[in-house]
Amino acid sequence: MAENAARTRTHWRYRRGLGGEMLAEVLGTFILLLLGCGAVAVAVAALPESGRQVTDFGPANWLIIIWGWGFGVVFGVYAAGGVSGAHINPAVTLAFAVRRAFPWYKVVPYWFAQVVGAFLAAALVYAVYAPAIDSLNASEGLARSESLNTFSIFATFPAEYFGGSWWGPLLDQVVGTGILVCLICALIDTRNMAPSANMGPFLIGMVVTVIGLTFGPGAGYAINPARDFGPRLWTFVAGWDEIAFPGSYEWFSWYFWIPIVGPLIGGVIGAVVYDLFVGHVLAERAKPEVGRVPE
Amino acid sequence: MAENAARTRTHWRYRRGLGGEMLAEVLGTFILLLLGCGAVAVAVAALPESGRQVTDFGPANWLIIIWGWGFGVVFGVYAAGGVSGAHINPAVTLAFAVRRAFPWYKVVPYWFAQVVGAFLAAALVYAVYAPAIDSLNASEGLARSESLNTFSIFATFPAEYFGGSWWGPLLDQVVGTGILVCLICALIDTRNMAPSANMGPFLIGMVVTVIGLTFGPGAGYAINPARDFGPRLWTFVAGWDEIAFPGSYEWFSWYFWIPIVGPLIGGVIGAVVYDLFVGHVLAERAKPEVGRVPE
Amino acid sequence: MAENAARTRTHWRYRRGLGGEMLAEVLGTFILLLLGCGAVAVAVAALPESGRQVTDFGPANWLIIIWGWGFGVVFGVYAAGGVSGAHINPAVTLAFAVRRAFPWYKVVPYWFAQVVGAFLAAALVYAVYAPAIDSLNASEGLARSESLNTFSIFATFPAEYFGGSWWGPLLDQVVGTGILVCLICALIDTRNMAPSANMGPFLIGMVVTVIGLTFGPGAGYAINPARDFGPRLWTFVAGWDEIAFPGSYEWFSWYFWIPIVGPLIGGVIGAVVYDLFVGHVLAERAKPEVGRVPE
Amino acid sequence: MAENAARTRTHWRYRRGLGGEMLAEVLGTFILLLLGCGAVAVAVAALPESGRQVTDFGPANWLIIIWGWGFGVVFGVYAAGGVSGAHINPAVTLAFAVRRAFPWYKVVPYWFAQVVGAFLAAALVYAVYAPAIDSLNASEGLARSESLNTFSIFATFPAEYFGGSWWGPLLDQVVGTGILVCLICALIDTRNMAPSANMGPFLIGMVVTVIGLTFGPGAGYAINPARDFGPRLWTFVAGWDEIAFPGSYEWFSWYFWIPIVGPLIGGVIGAVVYDLFVGHVLAERAKPEVGRVPE
Repeated sequence: MAENAARTRTHWRYRRGLGGEMLAEVLGTFILLLLGCGAVAVAVAALPESGRQVTDFGPANWLIIIWGWGFGVVFGVYAAGGVSGAHINPAVTLAFAVRRAFPWYKVVPYWFAQVVGAFLAAALVYAVYAPAIDSLNASEGLARSESLNTFSIFATFPAEYFGGSWWGPLLDQVVGTGILVCLICALIDTRNMAPSANMGPFLIGMVVTVIGLTFGPGAGYAINPARDFGPRLWTFVAGWDEIAFPGSYEWFSWYFWIPIVGPLIGGVIGAVVYDLFVGHVLAERAKPEVGRVPE
Repeated sequence: MAENAARTRTHWRYRRGLGGEMLAEVLGTFILLLLGCGAVAVAVAALPESGRQVTDFGPANWLIIIWGWGFGVVFGVYAAGGVSGAHINPAVTLAFAVRRAFPWYKVVPYWFAQVVGAFLAAALVYAVYAPAIDSLNASEGLARSESLNTFSIFATFPAEYFGGSWWGPLLDQVVGTGILVCLICALIDTRNMAPSANMGPFLIGMVVTVIGLTFGPGAGYAINPARDFGPRLWTFVAGWDEIAFPGSYEWFSWYFWIPIVGPLIGGVIGAVVYDLFVGHVLAERAKPEVGRVPE
Repeated sequence: MAENAARTRTHWRYRRGLGGEMLAEVLGTFILLLLGCGAVAVAVAALPESGRQVTDFGPANWLIIIWGWGFGVVFGVYAAGGVSGAHINPAVTLAFAVRRAFPWYKVVPYWFAQVVGAFLAAALVYAVYAPAIDSLNASEGLARSESLNTFSIFATFPAEYFGGSWWGPLLDQVVGTGILVCLICALIDTRNMAPSANMGPFLIGMVVTVIGLTFGPGAGYAINPARDFGPRLWTFVAGWDEIAFPGSYEWFSWYFWIPIVGPLIGGVIGAVVYDLFVGHVLAERAKPEVGRVPE
Repeated sequence: MAENAARTRTHWRYRRGLGGEMLAEVLGTFILLLLGCGAVAVAVAALPESGRQVTDFGPANWLIIIWGWGFGVVFGVYAAGGVSGAHINPAVTLAFAVRRAFPWYKVVPYWFAQVVGAFLAAALVYAVYAPAIDSLNASEGLARSESLNTFSIFATFPAEYFGGSWWGPLLDQVVGTGILVCLICALIDTRNMAPSANMGPFLIGMVVTVIGLTFGPGAGYAINPARDFGPRLWTFVAGWDEIAFPGSYEWFSWYFWIPIVGPLIGGVIGAVVYDLFVGHVLAERAKPEVGRVPE
């Protein structure tokens, strides 16, 4: 018995380090995607198909989506925060490596865990909502591989008004993720006005709510490579074909890389902007006052 | 006088223990159901019947429902939390008995108190909204026992898109309650990022808000056996007949057990998932570091 | 100069006591009504008349109203709380006098201040929204004294589905105010889970949000005699005639007393219910344990 | 190297003082406008143009706008608060100079920084949403300089129901900004019930949410001269011509000064009202009790 306990303890010791952090990132990203994709499933498929009389997609559907993703972040961060810091977003991980001394050797493991959590969540959302999806596709008269509508439950695509230009959605992703990371930097900066009483995760989630309200419809506010790529993989497996990967449809081809590259760039820019306008000011003020140095 | 006071004190002493906890569970669940069912009554019956021009049920009605249930939990927990821990949900009680050392002998008394609170709240909601219900049934041209619409104020039923399958709504209930209990475990885990300043109940309620946004329309997100069974009993008494119990209508028969069994299973799974991915990691880290044990 | 300062100090000394509390109640109730009535003005008159294409009143309009009143309470309480305790509601004042040892001699002065604040706010809302009101009345083809729609910006009336019965709206008001005061008792009970960090007013406001979501449309959720009577006085002065006072229209006569009497009764009941189910339990637990008293 | 570091330190020393505060005001106002204007862009242009079937502007669009601006303030304040106090609004700066001893010499620099931040944000919103704007203008069949609809993404104009009167929108701006500054004074007054745990910025943002819900549609709730004037400059440059500056269209001429003058007046009034009803009471109570002074 004692020997058994000792062996178990040894067995689980990897959890003290990066292994435990990866587990937490898997769960945090899983929760984020489960709630986020679930919200789109409700807005797009389940609510219209639940026997009530709903037909058009409008601003109230959009409110379902933005609160769903926002609280998805809130609770993903509460779930994982005490172990891994709850990045649950490769763009956050990269930005923290570049500007916040997050160890580079952990970057790829974090990314991997995030994509795994996102993929698993997409699969579970699919398991719950497959009947609603099939019912909606049937009422649209579309095969699954033709239905951007049901695909949108899982991953993103750009608005038609961008035309075939990749610059429009890429800029959208850079700006959206820039806001996200800039504000995360503000909300965790204890020299600034970081909320205490562990209310930070609530406000970080509300950042994603407001990005959905403000930079959401243009390109689906992935603002997180794992959030888009994990479910995209799932939908490719599940029959959405080219819409899923490489992300091609009537007005756009090969979209999949934009919600990966855009957020990675935007996140770093967001952290830099925060530092230039506020972070360095606070650092400067924290230094002891010194006399003017002769040149 | 002094003798009287002494007698009173003796008389109420049961409140110090399980009796007081049961009273608190009654009140907490009563508040939850009063607000939750009240929100559906507003969305389904009162608002369309209040003389304003509202006809269709759409996503904005859904927002009324999800904020109503969410804040119902918030305030049910604030009301009962300091006495009983405010489970106000048999699935939470069971999961805490299985994974959080909640005493097994209290499980059935808690369940009983929760169902009583839910039943009483349904009766009061009915007392307030009977005129709106009758008015809506009249405008639908349906007898009460034929109206799923007015029944939905009190208890749940699955979306038509599931067809007659019990697996779809059961999975929905397992997943919904799994998310609920997993996130409750996160939000009260002081080794993790549990909110302090007694803001926890606010966030626990927001968990139910987001479940409504994400896994709500499929099967009405009971995610709580007392929330469904208590009002279901009331509606059976009040004339909804077979729709209420055993829960049978055009595309489904004998539904009533699903929002009981699904949540009880899902809650335990949610607690286990939290522990596997995060809880055990935090426990492991809290242990003193030991050398590698020879095998 | 010094003599002047001394005289000023003397002049203002009344503010240290009940006078200052009354000033704070005036401001708190003023803010509550300014925001609450403002929200109805937006939902009913300004938004449809602002040049955008809005015609029907539906659930999304209702969301504007419930968030408006909810945050009205939040900020009314933050404004007045540190001075008067921010009752801003005669039903709260009465319930606190009956169950929380609030001094009886202050009850009528508080009530007076609350009605004054409410009346002044109604006048200012009218000043801002008179053009929108006139424009809406013109488009309805109704004289002001015939327009329940524009009257509803200021004060309440029961839904048509109640018919001419006074019992329906009275019960509605008793239940709504009962919930309000019961939950206020919970949220300020430091033996229970009262939020700290001065976040209580936020949650007290959310109680009113959720009452609007759950017991709002039946009788307009006055749940506060000053909130209804103050603006009702204003509308009587401003030309809504019998609709305003005594509150008579097609399907109801002499309504004005219901949102006064209902809340006063309901508030006391709410406090009693809280004490019976939770308050006394907490009091019992706080007592030192004693041996069984012989009879 | 050491010399370099010393030179750098010298180079950045201006950040310790007003320079750093100005940088923070630029970023805070930039975030406010980026999110606020972004929300209007979503509600007016992007959501209807994103390939979904949305045509009318209604109350659910308004909810997108009010949450967007509200959270814009929340995060603008979290970003800048620790450095500059996060006025991000010239009306707040003026009111604090008049009533809260904010140094007068900083007023104009703050104003300048706020307008710069607002202008830059408008430019970035334009960069992201130009395709949606052009697409909407095309579907309206209007030239950019004729489209109030797309102009409304950036700056404000009064509702048609005011007719050509400047008094209506001016009063609207005075009242709206009066509420804002009165409630800011309450929320930061530590003698009153100021939220702690750094949750103040959340509630200050919610003040702007509720002003949008209650005094929003009349004149677009600028309630902030920089919020209106900065983006107005941008739209003038970007081709909205006279609609932008001097703000002239069918039913109004030379509007631009109202959202500057109204807020500056209203803010001071709001601070005075707070002090008269509550601030002075709290100050009086904080004084040591003295005997009655002979006259």
